[in-house]
Parts: sequence; structure tokens; C-alpha cells
Amino acid sequence: MTKLHIASIAYELPDRYVLSNELDEKCQTPIGYAEEHIGIKSRYYFDKKTVLAGGAAAAQKAVEQAGLTWADIDCMVAASATKWQPIPCMAACIKKELGLNDLSFPCFDIDSTCLSFMVALDSLSWLVQGGKYKNVLIVSAEQPSGVLNWQQPKSACLFGDMAVAAVIGQSAQAKKVLFSSFSTHAKGADFARIKGGQLAKLSTYYTPENKADYLFDMNGRSIYKATAQVLPDIFARAFKETGLCWDDIAMVIPHQASPLAMTLMCKKLGIPLEKMMFTIQDYGNNVAASIPFAFAKATEQGKIKRGDKVMLLGTSAGLSIGVMLLEY
Amino acid sequence: MTKLHIASIAYELPDRYVLSNELDEKCQTPIGYAEEHIGIKSRYYFDKKTVLAGGAAAAQKAVEQAGLTWADIDCMVAASATKWQPIPCMAACIKKELGLNDLSFPCFDIDSTCLSFMVALDSLSWLVQGGKYKNVLIVSAEQPSGVLNWQQPKSACLFGDMAVAAVIGQSAQAKKVLFSSFSTHAKGADFARIKGGQLAKLSTYYTPENKADYLFDMNGRSIYKATAQVLPDIFARAFKETGLCWDDIAMVIPHQASPLAMTLMCKKLGIPLEKMMFTIQDYGNNVAASIPFAFAKATEQGKIKRGDKVMLLGTSAGLSIGVMLLEY
Repeated sequence: MTKLHIASIAYELPDRYVLSNELDEKCQTPIGYAEEHIGIKSRYYFDKKTVLAGGAAAAQKAVEQAGLTWADIDCMVAASATKWQPIPCMAACIKKELGLNDLSFPCFDIDSTCLSFMVALDSLSWLVQGGKYKNVLIVSAEQPSGVLNWQQPKSACLFGDMAVAAVIGQSAQAKKVLFSSFSTHAKGADFARIKGGQLAKLSTYYTPENKADYLFDMNGRSIYKATAQVLPDIFARAFKETGLCWDDIAMVIPHQASPLAMTLMCKKLGIPLEKMMFTIQDYGNNVAASIPFAFAKATEQGKIKRGDKVMLLGTSAGLSIGVMLLEY
Repeated sequence: MTKLHIASIAYELPDRYVLSNELDEKCQTPIGYAEEHIGIKSRYYFDKKTVLAGGAAAAQKAVEQAGLTWADIDCMVAASATKWQPIPCMAACIKKELGLNDLSFPCFDIDSTCLSFMVALDSLSWLVQGGKYKNVLIVSAEQPSGVLNWQQPKSACLFGDMAVAAVIGQSAQAKKVLFSSFSTHAKGADFARIKGGQLAKLSTYYTPENKADYLFDMNGRSIYKATAQVLPDIFARAFKETGLCWDDIAMVIPHQASPLAMTLMCKKLGIPLEKMMFTIQDYGNNVAASIPFAFAKATEQGKIKRGDKVMLLGTSAGLSIGVMLLEY
């Protein structure tokens, strides 16, 4: 297991605040439907501000909060499902947006849809520990609002845009990652997808008639069922290998999949509901930015303090599942 | 520095063989133009066979050549610039194509355009060395033929599709990575790009009139100039830090950018031309699959043997540059 020091986590809110009532009109569902039936009151969308500008602003804050300057950063990883351009990678686009033309630190992307931040955090921790990089900036900047299907209000109303960045670095304060498990269950590869826009169905095949193929499509119930089948074994391993129990864990920082799924998960899998961090009611499901955003909010609200044991719990298209136990 | 054992590298040729004369007709350039002026005789395109099937076949071969079974693989990374779907990640799509529904090893993507394979190789070597994973499969399956702009014959005729996979694993035969340097120079972020198909210009904004925005666009001259400015310092560092010189290196395995740029690079930077591996004349520029394909061909032709010192030399959109010196 690696050691990990999360030096900072900072977010930048998108510029447009969107109440669920507005989406009810858009989806032609009764006013109050999204809030009552989906459980989400509001979320933010990138509008005049781009997601690149959001990612750049979050990155700038994270560098400052870590007490660093840009010259201290020696790698930037963009960890998101929604991207700016097919080529080059999102991290290079964010670096350009930041105007960092005189700094040559490498930029690349890690993508495991909603699990991207966790995979980047876990993977890069090995490179930091090994001495390859001193300070790595991980940026999850997401704009799902661009690819939602308003004909599917149950999934479309779930999402919100968000930009979050974190610095992980070499430090005497680095704590051991106590447990880390990632898995992909390909029988669920179609449970959440955007089919069109790449080689499977090129952008240049788009017509207004096949628009749905280019938008997000999700079978939430199948994802929930598959996840609930796999998680008990992972939890059992996590607790057996670390000797910990739920009492030892200050907070669970989950992917903000949906209020319903998160609450059900607590009930079914024995996660104490009061330890489950919820940001989804006010900010929506922020794709890969969900976990770092919920982490940042938990520290902001004093729910996580330095030295606390925290569980990160990720689920994503793929179908991929990640669980990490770490000391903050 | 990490240790690295490349247990296998295997490729799967796409199903359609395409001579340059065919592209001359498509581009309405004089017959012979692509071969004479661009220096490429042929390439392969995925046609009836999908790039996913190609990636899956290369992956299967790599696992077998490494003397392993699928149960030995504990992580799969897709490292390519062209993707199957926006969601989920390419690695999950390849796992589904392989029908590996009962194996839960994690799948994620690493993207640094043409440098993706090198970044994955370098990054994952730390996770293998650290003990996180025993055998990692890296798959670079590329289908640039889907996104070429035939109005730009000079870049369109350069590319060929290809699928390559490699297994890196824990082994007593693992050799030290002697040198590894990656950098991104964001002033060149627009030198090679596909602008449309993601958030910068959504697929759903496509019309036949703005088609060029959804296709690959490259300023080869600017890329060459920027690369030639940066590489001398990296070479100087590589040789200073390792105490090696060109005589010690069996082969240079470069990204197959273009025959002209590769030849010029040798002349300008002092790379012995006979040590530069060329596959581009017969197979084109295979994006991120170029480097592992050229590596596989060099071993096939006996130009690289176990124990040889090899330089990997990557350039990509971003603008990113990577140099690794390793013992095979």
C-alpha cells in the first residue's frame, strides 16, 4: 500500500444556479417532480463560464491552498468523463487555459467515468511515493449538462456540473492508504453510456433524428442492483484486511449517484446513514467531480478533520466500483 | 526509477489493406502523390472488423505470448487517442468485447494522444513495482481513419489504424528504467486537434457545413519545430544522467509521426538513422499504437533483443513529448 498526502482540495462552482422547477418545465414533468421524486433541489451548470475555465480556477485554488506555486507542480492529471475536445487531452487544454506556457510539466488524462478521480488518486499516489513526481495536481472538471437527454428526466435531472482539483504530494505528513480496491464488471458496460460521438457512432453521423444516441443514457436500477451485489464482499475484505469497522470511519465519501440509490445502499449494506456524505440534493451528481467535491464539502463543514479515517466509495459506468480507506 | 518487465507485445492488423494510390483518388491528388510526397506506400484500416475487435485480439495474443491466462491479469489500461464511445471508457468496452464477464480486474483509460502508450507504460510500471498489480495489460487500439479530413491530404494520408497490446508484470527479469521524461508544452495545444465531438463543440451541433471541426486537423510544421526545440535538452539530460551515448542504444523506437519529420529529426538531433525504427512507410502513423507496434516489429525483425538498451521517443498533440531509456 502507498502513502498519500492530500495537500488540498478546492472547487469552483459553475456560474448558473438551476432550480429543479426550471428542469420540470424543460422536461414537461409536473412542477415539483424533480425535487420530490428524484430528491434534488438544485444544481449548477457551466453557462457563460466554460468547464475549462472552471477547471483552471479550481486548479489555481488547489495550488494556492496547498501553499505551493505553479513551479512546484510537476504533473497534472485531468480525471473526468466529460472532455473538452477529443484531441488533445483535457489536461493539456486546462494547462493552455491557465496560460502556463513556460512550464513544461506533463499533462495527461485518466478516465474511468465517475471513478476517474479515485483511480487518478490511487494510481498517482504510487508515482509520488516512488519519487517520480513531488506534487501532482488532479483536476476533475465536469459538464454533464451538455450531454443530457431531457426525454429521460429521471437521469437528466440528477446531474450538475462542477470543477474540483486536488494536490497530492510528498510530505512527512503522508498517511498510509489502508485499503484500495478497484474492479470492472463488463456485463454492466451498457448500463450507463453515451453511444455516439466517437468511433462506435461518429459525430459526423449525427442527425436531429438520432440525437438520443449522442446523449447520456442510464439504467439506474441495473447499476444499483449490480453494485449492491458486489459491494458486500469488498466491504468485508476492507474490514478484514484493516481490522477496522464502521465505528472507526469518520465519514463515507461516496459518488453522488442518486439520493435514492445512496440511501438504499446505506440501508442494505449497513453503512451508518449519518456517516454518508450527501451533496447531491443541492449540487446534483457531478460525475467524477462528485467524490472530490463531497470530500471538500465534508472538510469545509468540519465532518472530516486531519487524521480521520475516511472511506471513498465510487461507482461508475463500466461498470466499475472502487473503495478506498485512507487517513486524511 | 522503476523496474520494468515487458513480458509481451502483440499486434492485430486491421482487415483492410489500403494503398496510397486509392487515397490519391479520394483526395483528388495526382496518382503517386501520397507515396512520393508523403513517403507512405500503404496502411491498414479497420473496416468489417471493429477497432474494439482488433484491440481484443491484440490483447488475447499479448496475454498468451506472456505465457499467462486471463486470470493472471489484474488491471487493463486502454491507452489510445481515438475511443469507441464517450462513456464508458475504452478499456471497459474492450473487456466487454472479450466477453470477460466473470473477471473483475479494473479497467481504465490513460490519454495523452499519441503518447498514451508511453505514459501508461511509465505510470503503471510504478504500480507493478509497488505491488499494486502483478500483470497489467496495456492496449492501444486506434482507428484514426474514422476522423480524417480528406481535404487535408498531407495529414490524412499519413495515418493508419492499428491495435497493439503489451503485458508488463512483476518478474525477476525486470530491468531498470534508465531514464524517463515527459513534458507538455501548452503553447502547442492547437497544433494537432479534433475540435468537435465533446464540450468545446458538441456532436449535436454537427452539420455537413461544419464537418471539418469534427475531423483531425494538424499543423505538422509547427509540431516539428516545437519538438526539435525541446528534444536536444532532453537528450542531453538522458545521456548525462545515464552515462550512455547513441552507441549504447540498440534502437530508437519513435512515434511514427511522418517519414519527413522522422528523417529530419535524425539529421538535426544526431540520431543515427540506421538505429531509427521506421514502420510508417508500410503501416502509416498509428497514433498511440505507433510506438508499441514499432517495438513489436523491431523484436520480430531481430533489431531488438532481450537485454538491449532501447530509446522510446514520443511526440503528441498537447504538445507533449516523452523520452524513455530502458533495457528490454
